[in-house]
Amino acid sequence: MNSMFRLMPIALALAAGSARSQGVVISGIADAAARSVSNEGRGSVKSQVSGSNSTSRLIFRATEDLGGGMSAGVHLEHGISLDTGTPASATQFFDRRSTVSLSGQTWGEVRLGRDFVPSYVNWSRYDPFSYVGVAGSNNLVSATPQGPIRATYGTAPNTTVRSNNTFQWFMPGNWGGLEGGVLLAPGEGGVAANGQAKVQGARVGYLTKQWGASVAHTRSENDLTAAGGAFTDQALGGSVDFGMVRVSAVQRRFKQDQAKQTNTLLGAWIPIGLHEIKLSWVKADLSGRVGATAIDANDASQIGLGYVYNVSKRTVLYGSYSRIDNKGAATFVVPGGPSGMAGGGTSSGYEVGMRMGF
Amino acid sequence: MNSMFRLMPIALALAAGSARSQGVVISGIADAAARSVSNEGRGSVKSQVSGSNSTSRLIFRATEDLGGGMSAGVHLEHGISLDTGTPASATQFFDRRSTVSLSGQTWGEVRLGRDFVPSYVNWSRYDPFSYVGVAGSNNLVSATPQGPIRATYGTAPNTTVRSNNTFQWFMPGNWGGLEGGVLLAPGEGGVAANGQAKVQGARVGYLTKQWGASVAHTRSENDLTAAGGAFTDQALGGSVDFGMVRVSAVQRRFKQDQAKQTNTLLGAWIPIGLHEIKLSWVKADLSGRVGATAIDANDASQIGLGYVYNVSKRTVLYGSYSRIDNKGAATFVVPGGPSGMAGGGTSSGYEVGMRMGF
Amino acid sequence: MNSMFRLMPIALALAAGSARSQGVVISGIADAAARSVSNEGRGSVKSQVSGSNSTSRLIFRATEDLGGGMSAGVHLEHGISLDTGTPASATQFFDRRSTVSLSGQTWGEVRLGRDFVPSYVNWSRYDPFSYVGVAGSNNLVSATPQGPIRATYGTAPNTTVRSNNTFQWFMPGNWGGLEGGVLLAPGEGGVAANGQAKVQGARVGYLTKQWGASVAHTRSENDLTAAGGAFTDQALGGSVDFGMVRVSAVQRRFKQDQAKQTNTLLGAWIPIGLHEIKLSWVKADLSGRVGATAIDANDASQIGLGYVYNVSKRTVLYGSYSRIDNKGAATFVVPGGPSGMAGGGTSSGYEVGMRMGF
Repeated sequence: MNSMFRLMPIALALAAGSARSQGVVISGIADAAARSVSNEGRGSVKSQVSGSNSTSRLIFRATEDLGGGMSAGVHLEHGISLDTGTPASATQFFDRRSTVSLSGQTWGEVRLGRDFVPSYVNWSRYDPFSYVGVAGSNNLVSATPQGPIRATYGTAPNTTVRSNNTFQWFMPGNWGGLEGGVLLAPGEGGVAANGQAKVQGARVGYLTKQWGASVAHTRSENDLTAAGGAFTDQALGGSVDFGMVRVSAVQRRFKQDQAKQTNTLLGAWIPIGLHEIKLSWVKADLSGRVGATAIDANDASQIGLGYVYNVSKRTVLYGSYSRIDNKGAATFVVPGGPSGMAGGGTSSGYEVGMRMGF
Repeated sequence: MNSMFRLMPIALALAAGSARSQGVVISGIADAAARSVSNEGRGSVKSQVSGSNSTSRLIFRATEDLGGGMSAGVHLEHGISLDTGTPASATQFFDRRSTVSLSGQTWGEVRLGRDFVPSYVNWSRYDPFSYVGVAGSNNLVSATPQGPIRATYGTAPNTTVRSNNTFQWFMPGNWGGLEGGVLLAPGEGGVAANGQAKVQGARVGYLTKQWGASVAHTRSENDLTAAGGAFTDQALGGSVDFGMVRVSAVQRRFKQDQAKQTNTLLGAWIPIGLHEIKLSWVKADLSGRVGATAIDANDASQIGLGYVYNVSKRTVLYGSYSRIDNKGAATFVVPGGPSGMAGGGTSSGYEVGMRMGF
Repeated sequence: MNSMFRLMPIALALAAGSARSQGVVISGIADAAARSVSNEGRGSVKSQVSGSNSTSRLIFRATEDLGGGMSAGVHLEHGISLDTGTPASATQFFDRRSTVSLSGQTWGEVRLGRDFVPSYVNWSRYDPFSYVGVAGSNNLVSATPQGPIRATYGTAPNTTVRSNNTFQWFMPGNWGGLEGGVLLAPGEGGVAANGQAKVQGARVGYLTKQWGASVAHTRSENDLTAAGGAFTDQALGGSVDFGMVRVSAVQRRFKQDQAKQTNTLLGAWIPIGLHEIKLSWVKADLSGRVGATAIDANDASQIGLGYVYNVSKRTVLYGSYSRIDNKGAATFVVPGGPSGMAGGGTSSGYEVGMRMGF
């Protein structure tokens, strides 16, 4: 055998990710689309948007092998509005994640910094639209109309997705399908207007290649919850992969004082070679009251339909459609449409775009 | 000795971080200078400035080969004020460019995101000072004094350089000297105060190694142009390389409602071994009126003289001088001087600095 | 043909972009801790904090070998609040350093941009806690209570650590133990509220492996110092390494008009294998007056105790404790505690955390 061919695999292997072993790994997602959204009685708006298949981002990561099955790691993740070059958060540059951690093969990972809360992780994994775009299930999670979320945070940053100041423990990857963790964050004052909240949460699940089920609980306190009790956020879901189709079902319950919001999602992924069809149905059910105002009538539902063409492993073209039907005073909308829709209106939108992983 | 072991150390050393071929390529420019600017009747100010030869910046790029002559690409470019560490734009971190694109060898490139407008590209390529520094032709493009630019945008961000939300198509590189493209951007409300404008533009040119000529048209609309009609921005120019000297000539016409501004530039680059002399003459001719105010008298001209020493391919030392003569109420100034110069005054400045490409 | 030469082109092609040798080097620090701070009469606050052992940061660097012993370099350094993902400075992204430079083996380095001032460099090197964390000597350098620093800057950014717009010269590394440099920065208006100051400074020291001594002087002027004269900042210190323990002593004098503040620090580092004990004592002595207010009584002292366990060369676990005793109207505090402590109160805090270099 020629020595050249003997050496090829070595050289290739060595070159395959040398940045990975010795330094900082930079990666990210660039995703942009053309969107049109119509809101009942208000006409429509055409726009260019960022992150409709997956949020545009830039990531810096590094790990250090400490020996004995232990390692240290850093993860800094910046969200980008690619259409304008603007940070996704005006104040938090590494808004998506900013953590340092210590991991051990037998005992898992201890992670400090800004990160997702357990209930979000346990909801978004079951959403075929990954909580983004015209058909993302995030459209039915907002401070408008008023419900437990608005009662707890007003228009200040909330903890329905991420939390600052987290101390987390994650199970290791070798507990036979079991996965999950615990999160604690000090309130540091707990002033909602400052984006502060004391957070406690946990998540546990069982995952195989064909099916999985998981449950999570997150509890947040701040100065606005002092009177009526903590804001709680629970998510229970599961999914089954039948090969021709993967289906999911998940329910999430937000509660604070007398106000409750229950969101339910049914999802489906249908792979057809390089193509994929995605379907989702989401329902938001508000009940109880905020102060003296009854909110029971303010429900909404959303249907989402998506198509993804995998040009390569990293690059996709996609199109999505969604429609939200509000009841009562509910004004949930597809993002990017004209403002001022009346309560109970219908909002719909579609988009065509491109995503590149790098 | 086996050749495999002989080669191991080489392969290991060579593999020490191949970010370029497999991942994200990071590059940029660091440029700083000492500057002094005198404004008539107001004295002078000495300062340290950033980006006088080329704007200081940090760039993240990646491409993916999709096969069949196609590729996907991302380009994120952040402008830096190196003298203070401050972003060039307070709100748009990737203010210089933020795009994702799909390219084909035969049909060109489709690009989405924030990028240059056609008329800017077709003007700045003919400016020996690249639209920056004491002698940059940008000194005669501003919201002060009032003219079509100010009438269209007030002091809000304008589209004389870049636009958010662009959908672009560029010709491929193999159309025998022909180059150019088309740009469209939805207004998304078109509120000037929000930096929003609906933009349409196109550019076409013919380039050889010795000469080139090109023309571009850009049209922007927002809520302020609703009454008087769109803001138009046209540029027509060309250059010839005689070997000992390269010369350029270009004209740019801004127009909105009754106001017009015509800028004309003559430029020259004289390479002498590692040295280069740069010369430019720019004239701004305002005409018509803004509302009831006649602006015909408010013209200005600028002369620029530059010297560049190429220490290496990437690093240069440079010095520049410029002088602006205003007429009427015109108050165009070299940036960095004392404020409050009266209309018709003279502004002059010089700077000595260093630029490093990385 | 030798197989080594056959493989060379392959290996070279694979190496086509070794980020480390040919391009941009990215590195940084991720540091997070749990902290508790008690302020007399105000209770305590528990929090997660960033950068208690070393400020969390992300660094982009590049150098170019220009031949003949000369090189060009760029250094961009961004401070991160890892607990929230927020930039350490709301306006200056590369707040820690933003410079371009030209170096020669025989004549040293000329550096332009934002960087440390000489007196800070000459103080912080003698602080076992590196001017950060609960026991950092920075706790006794603040605008509260009023003294020369507040008289000069109010609550605007000051030059006790860094300055914008600096022109610096540094001695080369081969002057036999001698080290130091000179700094000049134009005021560009010198408006304290805009963070502007005209700065002049110099630093000289003599360093061996076992001992070192150095002195620095920094002088800043802005519109607030126009009446009473420039703000001066001097630091004189030294350290000796006895092997089992390294000790340091340093004094820093801030002065403006009739107000003076003298800070004195004694420090010790005790390495024990992979462990390290750190001790510091700092005293702030205010004297004179600000306007008509006498400040002589407003002194304070701090003791600091630290432990560091070196998990690896890059990763450490650490714990620190400190206690500040105020006199008179002094309200120096350990950062992160409850607000509103009365003058003369006691502030104490401890923290346990992790730092990873990457």
